[in-house]
Amino acid sequence: MASVIALGGNALGRGTAAEQLTVLRGTCAAIAPLLAEGEVVVTHGNGPQVGNELLRQERAADEVPPLPLYLAVAQTQAEIGALIETELSAAAGRAVACLLTHVHVDADDPAFERPSKPIGPFYSADQAQELERGRGWQLVEDAGRGFRRVVPSPEPLEIVEIDAIRALLASGAVAVACGGGGIPVVSRNGHLKGIDAVIDKDRASALLARQLGAERLVILTEVPAVYRLFRKSNQEEIRELPAAEAEALLPELAEGSMRPKVEAAIELARAGGETLITSADALADALEGRAGTRIA
Amino acid sequence: MASVIALGGNALGRGTAAEQLTVLRGTCAAIAPLLAEGEVVVTHGNGPQVGNELLRQERAADEVPPLPLYLAVAQTQAEIGALIETELSAAAGRAVACLLTHVHVDADDPAFERPSKPIGPFYSADQAQELERGRGWQLVEDAGRGFRRVVPSPEPLEIVEIDAIRALLASGAVAVACGGGGIPVVSRNGHLKGIDAVIDKDRASALLARQLGAERLVILTEVPAVYRLFRKSNQEEIRELPAAEAEALLPELAEGSMRPKVEAAIELARAGGETLITSADALADALEGRAGTRIA
Repeated sequence: MASVIALGGNALGRGTAAEQLTVLRGTCAAIAPLLAEGEVVVTHGNGPQVGNELLRQERAADEVPPLPLYLAVAQTQAEIGALIETELSAAAGRAVACLLTHVHVDADDPAFERPSKPIGPFYSADQAQELERGRGWQLVEDAGRGFRRVVPSPEPLEIVEIDAIRALLASGAVAVACGGGGIPVVSRNGHLKGIDAVIDKDRASALLARQLGAERLVILTEVPAVYRLFRKSNQEEIRELPAAEAEALLPELAEGSMRPKVEAAIELARAGGETLITSADALADALEGRAGTRIA
Repeated sequence: MASVIALGGNALGRGTAAEQLTVLRGTCAAIAPLLAEGEVVVTHGNGPQVGNELLRQERAADEVPPLPLYLAVAQTQAEIGALIETELSAAAGRAVACLLTHVHVDADDPAFERPSKPIGPFYSADQAQELERGRGWQLVEDAGRGFRRVVPSPEPLEIVEIDAIRALLASGAVAVACGGGGIPVVSRNGHLKGIDAVIDKDRASALLARQLGAERLVILTEVPAVYRLFRKSNQEEIRELPAAEAEALLPELAEGSMRPKVEAAIELARAGGETLITSADALADALEGRAGTRIA
């Protein structure tokens, strides 16, 4: 059975590289049973890491040219991929291969008209004005904390390296791909062109699962399941969630958190795939149907 | 015919991402004939890029934890790999896949006892003392410019992801691998462990060519060939250089520049492989035996 496993921030860790390795060791132990079963691609987010990298770029901007955002996304694929590969190859007992992954987006995606995803460090009002003029960025005020760059979050359309991922899986390797949702690119005159945007990693993972014909997408997040009435006294853990019911539930799910995960699961369900949303700690139980939320 | 093509700084460009893309467009046009011939792996250096990244890490060190050097090497594999992939996929007319690459080194390599490779920004004497105490770095004074970190440059022993590279080549993709000489790792209790060192990219490329059984390693550098009496009035371009003669020539070649390239070529020649050292501009002539230096 082919699986795509999407690791969220809690499964990756934050802080120093050593701290992240410790968290990843636990995550890789939790997903070990899935690694034994068949073809596996591990995907991952990059929120804290790309935030750190963008801050580094700014702090050194007077001395070395800052990279465009799409290259900072690329950097985090390798940085996090190297950490994952270290722990995953020990846990999997087989080869792990981390592939730089680009994802096609549509240059006419409406997301480009309303950049909505805040990214990188905070700036003063003066700095924000200068960055808007100098670099053509769009910045919005975040109450009390200053101004922050916002970038588009377009829909992922196609994984550029899908055949390479298939080849790695066929060779028996566990693949690490689509880090941070992938490097967003458009095609222009036969050239790939990197785009300053970020792709939601769960949507990219669902696309990957669809393109691979994977039977399962596992989204590891900080809570063991999707809840109705989340964080209310009468919250209710959902075990099975048919796509139609999932759609009805969307408005009550947290934007930028559980909602995009369930949206990704709905997209995959429409293509015949199944998604399991759970935490690393609850994964063993979830695989036996005693925890987590299954969307199909 | 399988080829490994190693891109040096001149073939990659420096400066902004846009400037690097322009240089890479020319390089990829130059290597296009090789891309049509069979299996190709493109490797590359990362000197200016990893220098920039280490400087960024330092400038933001009070706000976000600096990454260990091996992860900065990883970052540059993706940053440069994404730029190469953009131009190479257009020039090759077939899929390009960039793989995060680790390279095994020996924890007892004598290089670890005498770090020799200067890397990253310059520091004052006070900063140097603090970094030696606080981070256990070794720093040396560079006449007039301040203190600089030095790291070991151990011998590359084995490409960790060699089977994955083979799988990518078999799938028909052009592979990009071993960026910056690869991420140096040692094995410890079944775990890969990243090591703060840098591997010479030409030696890593020769190892890769050997492990792949490639028939040819092409090292693209800033000069069209290896010279006897380089930069003297009677300098003499060398067309064919048997390994034994190459060995005798080593002492007169520039350390850290042409010498490691010829050393890598000698290693490969001993394993039955052939190396062509030339510039991107002279490559077309070199492939027809009218330029460049062939070491076999």
